[in-house]
Amino acid sequence: MLIVMDKTASEAEIAAVVAKIEALGYTAQTIPGGERMAIGILRNPGPVDPALFIDLPGVIEAIPVSRSYKLVSREMKRENSIIVLPQGVKIGGGHFVVMAGPCAVESELQAFTIARAVKAAGAQVFRGGAFKPRTSPYSYQGLEEEGLKILARVRDEIGLPVITEAIDHYSLDLVEQYADIIQIGARNMQNFSLLRRAGQARKPVLLKRGMSATLDEFFMAAEYILAEGNTQVILCERGIRGIGAHARNTLDLAAIPYVKKESHLPIIADPSHAAGRRLLVPPLARGAVAVGADGLIIEVHHDPTHALSDGPQSLYPEQFAALMRDIQTLRPGQWL
Amino acid sequence: MLIVMDKTASEAEIAAVVAKIEALGYTAQTIPGGERMAIGILRNPGPVDPALFIDLPGVIEAIPVSRSYKLVSREMKRENSIIVLPQGVKIGGGHFVVMAGPCAVESELQAFTIARAVKAAGAQVFRGGAFKPRTSPYSYQGLEEEGLKILARVRDEIGLPVITEAIDHYSLDLVEQYADIIQIGARNMQNFSLLRRAGQARKPVLLKRGMSATLDEFFMAAEYILAEGNTQVILCERGIRGIGAHARNTLDLAAIPYVKKESHLPIIADPSHAAGRRLLVPPLARGAVAVGADGLIIEVHHDPTHALSDGPQSLYPEQFAALMRDIQTLRPGQWL
Amino acid sequence: MLIVMDKTASEAEIAAVVAKIEALGYTAQTIPGGERMAIGILRNPGPVDPALFIDLPGVIEAIPVSRSYKLVSREMKRENSIIVLPQGVKIGGGHFVVMAGPCAVESELQAFTIARAVKAAGAQVFRGGAFKPRTSPYSYQGLEEEGLKILARVRDEIGLPVITEAIDHYSLDLVEQYADIIQIGARNMQNFSLLRRAGQARKPVLLKRGMSATLDEFFMAAEYILAEGNTQVILCERGIRGIGAHARNTLDLAAIPYVKKESHLPIIADPSHAAGRRLLVPPLARGAVAVGADGLIIEVHHDPTHALSDGPQSLYPEQFAALMRDIQTLRPGQWL
Amino acid sequence: MLIVMDKTASEAEIAAVVAKIEALGYTAQTIPGGERMAIGILRNPGPVDPALFIDLPGVIEAIPVSRSYKLVSREMKRENSIIVLPQGVKIGGGHFVVMAGPCAVESELQAFTIARAVKAAGAQVFRGGAFKPRTSPYSYQGLEEEGLKILARVRDEIGLPVITEAIDHYSLDLVEQYADIIQIGARNMQNFSLLRRAGQARKPVLLKRGMSATLDEFFMAAEYILAEGNTQVILCERGIRGIGAHARNTLDLAAIPYVKKESHLPIIADPSHAAGRRLLVPPLARGAVAVGADGLIIEVHHDPTHALSDGPQSLYPEQFAALMRDIQTLRPGQWL
Repeated sequence: MLIVMDKTASEAEIAAVVAKIEALGYTAQTIPGGERMAIGILRNPGPVDPALFIDLPGVIEAIPVSRSYKLVSREMKRENSIIVLPQGVKIGGGHFVVMAGPCAVESELQAFTIARAVKAAGAQVFRGGAFKPRTSPYSYQGLEEEGLKILARVRDEIGLPVITEAIDHYSLDLVEQYADIIQIGARNMQNFSLLRRAGQARKPVLLKRGMSATLDEFFMAAEYILAEGNTQVILCERGIRGIGAHARNTLDLAAIPYVKKESHLPIIADPSHAAGRRLLVPPLARGAVAVGADGLIIEVHHDPTHALSDGPQSLYPEQFAALMRDIQTLRPGQWL
Repeated sequence: MLIVMDKTASEAEIAAVVAKIEALGYTAQTIPGGERMAIGILRNPGPVDPALFIDLPGVIEAIPVSRSYKLVSREMKRENSIIVLPQGVKIGGGHFVVMAGPCAVESELQAFTIARAVKAAGAQVFRGGAFKPRTSPYSYQGLEEEGLKILARVRDEIGLPVITEAIDHYSLDLVEQYADIIQIGARNMQNFSLLRRAGQARKPVLLKRGMSATLDEFFMAAEYILAEGNTQVILCERGIRGIGAHARNTLDLAAIPYVKKESHLPIIADPSHAAGRRLLVPPLARGAVAVGADGLIIEVHHDPTHALSDGPQSLYPEQFAALMRDIQTLRPGQWL
Repeated sequence: MLIVMDKTASEAEIAAVVAKIEALGYTAQTIPGGERMAIGILRNPGPVDPALFIDLPGVIEAIPVSRSYKLVSREMKRENSIIVLPQGVKIGGGHFVVMAGPCAVESELQAFTIARAVKAAGAQVFRGGAFKPRTSPYSYQGLEEEGLKILARVRDEIGLPVITEAIDHYSLDLVEQYADIIQIGARNMQNFSLLRRAGQARKPVLLKRGMSATLDEFFMAAEYILAEGNTQVILCERGIRGIGAHARNTLDLAAIPYVKKESHLPIIADPSHAAGRRLLVPPLARGAVAVGADGLIIEVHHDPTHALSDGPQSLYPEQFAALMRDIQTLRPGQWL
Repeated sequence: MLIVMDKTASEAEIAAVVAKIEALGYTAQTIPGGERMAIGILRNPGPVDPALFIDLPGVIEAIPVSRSYKLVSREMKRENSIIVLPQGVKIGGGHFVVMAGPCAVESELQAFTIARAVKAAGAQVFRGGAFKPRTSPYSYQGLEEEGLKILARVRDEIGLPVITEAIDHYSLDLVEQYADIIQIGARNMQNFSLLRRAGQARKPVLLKRGMSATLDEFFMAAEYILAEGNTQVILCERGIRGIGAHARNTLDLAAIPYVKKESHLPIIADPSHAAGRRLLVPPLARGAVAVGADGLIIEVHHDPTHALSDGPQSLYPEQFAALMRDIQTLRPGQWL
């Protein structure tokens, strides 16, 4: 923490800041500048809240210096983390992954139809929701455990590891049993109770960035999972609140190289939820590959007109296959 | 839903849109305009997803017409809902309420000290967190059930009803037993599983607006609670992501008259979390009264320097008392 | 500027940062902390761009310390600036002003009708656009110099000083001749060429905050005007891009007490443009008074259905009169 | 425009809406739905402001239907516009362009050094500012006409067409004489007076999207230029206000395929200003190519430490050359 004083701050005001720092048990170091005094806080075991100082007389700014996150940071672990799934699929460190499937598992026939199509096109993980977080209580809410059983059969018969979302402790207990990756959705990125529970799971966790989360907040959410002992975390950029209505959200592709610089965890992109409409999914998917994402998670449906959720942003299987071919030309996994 | 066609849309493209509407089981009505055709969707039982149509050939826009929310709407219930608490405190319909207390309950002594001060200044409800949702896993997380017991003693001995936050099913079970109002925080506004559980509670629920939620999403979150049978919902505006760093969030005071027009539910404001610093709390509190809020929830601490959380935005008791006097001059509850 | 090093930064990396600081002609001071090194930059005559350092090896953050603005700052001038208009109207330092009138001057009859009404209700300044910045080239663009002449006649016959917008050098030359306050609109807040020209004018300038401007950027825009020698600047908060569609923009009322803390310049609020609809204008106007604004600028039209621009957000004269009565109960100018 | 009525709207309220539509000279058509009445507005020559209706009794929503932009729309012109520069450089319709050079022209030596480097790496247009819009009045403001003369010499001797920014009428007069493309910056996107002047120029115009502009507003700004007769407009996405501080702005890559669907004008991306730091420029540049941009504009400096502006986001010539090689693998111009 650095406390910046007003040019006209009195010696008494400076002394009061120093006294407060020392009252908190830290060490204060005054740093005289050209025009004004600054005061550094040393020997603080963790971050200090700037708001403790900003309204003191003579203070014009209080600037945090330390990072709040530890375990997710490259300062803690230099080399890229690589998540290894059943069937040998690897994610991160140059291993590029595509997860694809419907928004929601609707039936065994639907799931198998789509799973076969996405596998044929080259997807390595099958996605499908069994517990759906929906804006409206009147919307389709998912098949719940029956959906998880269908996912398990897809994995066993088709040979794709499966990812599905948990929305509370109850569903996480079930998802942990059936799935290969536990997804935590954007709306739950700061559901800290759920994050802790995911941290106790023995399966990898895909954590989506919240719609208005800073990357620091995103890292801190992941930190909750790692702090409970689960280091198998995959981050996912899925779009933030933007300006205008041309897309549902704004896919923040700058987040990807930034996360890769700051953290050892892999990060993938979800162009489907960011776009909200089919037209924009393939270009955003290509863009994510080209900025260096470690993978993609994409919604695909063989009959999106009748999909029970998110049909409009789901690719047709042939569009997905074309996208997979396009992606190959973009050197996925090579952009570090 | 209204589907707007390109000026140059062919008859075949128009027919395809009509056919899709009818395939979904609805009725299509073409509406020829000056320059272009529009197609209305009728007899849809609920909202139709615009994305079903926007990428069809010849379509340039698909515009939702229906409201998604029902139970929270003034279309459903014209008169203002009034929430009645133990000790006779009323909220809404001209009854203005001030809830005040520390961010977190830290000890019996702390809670009683602050409760006595805020009661003396005129607060009608005591607030204090026992389960704290914190951005960092390393921050203070609250006294949990011990905190709830302290809150219950405050109510019994000092005579103020109490409000405290629930962050998951486990804590909601406990909060429901001990508190008079169950608070759902901004980060859990779309934790739908928790909203359903709150809807099954027999206590009033204070629901905070999420940091990047539209008012439609806010209403739909409240709809989850009402749809489970709990109609005692108080809404709370607490600030959205803004621009710049002068305040932590931007208190969206226009939301208050808009909510009062659209919904029968009471809405209060939380200037403390929006401001993030003491300096801005009194002016924002006064502003909220003047736009017509049904109440305020304000953080107060007798020793904010040593508060375990949110000290910097907590008012000193004497500042709170001064604010309460100021508020009286602003005709609280009279601005409909 | 404070440069924060990675915990694992090598001595060579630290030395390289120091060398770069010295190459720029400044002084470097190393500040060893608990876990990591920080390096302060001293004797820099003005702000240093953090981006000069953030991508150097071993650097994790570069934090600006100085304020960029000087003349607008309370560090430069402690007492409130008070702007004095012809007819003795004062703005700032406890002098509360209401400016009211139509969005655009449409005719002499229209202007006089509205001016008489707003004067009768207590407005002290008449507003009306002669040069209109419109999103569409096909929208009404204003009466230009003819409108300015009408404004001048309003002032002479009715006795209200007038404010009107300049949108380029040409119109500013004219506005400076005819009006009492020169308005610079939100879309021109960073039209630096126009700001310089306004700084050379001998009339007060009302500067509106840009729709996505931080307060630092807002201060810097005002600094352009003061740096040219015109110290008669009135700031105006008029809403930033928000979330959802309930209002056109989000009036950022926290900006008002923050500006008053940081700057000696008066700041007023424009609830009409923020709201975009009549319903929200009176509550936002009251809110602005209660947070401590030095005044309001409000659109009023006697026949808004036929207004050539902004009719829907214009108050009827009787609504404006009611609002003026309400405002009196809110102690305008007393909230410092 | 579609007016949606409350479920409980009375016949008199519906009749009042119809009467208002007819009073405006348009035709009203009632559209009875399942639960509520809607009223369409027909025969309106241009867009109708929704705010004219939203606050009438019984109205719950007023929904615009028409597009406001005409000349920029694909409805007006189906085929892609291709801009042809001197030396035969083409932009749009599959012709991919890279514009590169320093933020500001600082000297003849600097300009020629960088121009030779970017030409050798494959850039087809040289960029360099002579008139600089700077947030602070105390920052470097450019060489003005002397800078334009240097640019002209670069073109004549090195053979690259040049692009440079105009910030007002005065500088546009000069830029039009010396440069091959006139740039209008993000802060001037709604400087309508300048847009009109650019529309009268006989040179192509590069128009940057404002930092908080919707795409509709961006199209309308371009419409100003086309409406004056200049159809040679290149759009440029350069980032919007985002969340957090990892990048200066959020490059909205979804805008690119959307613009290409809606408009015939070419659109390029500016990763340098979006990123604000060198580290993020190459990944964002690659991302823009992969989503289908028609080109890039990139800042390059041979000695960014001593650059007078924007040094930190400028690539070194060898980084730029590497990026140009990377781009070739991404099939620029092929992603429609």
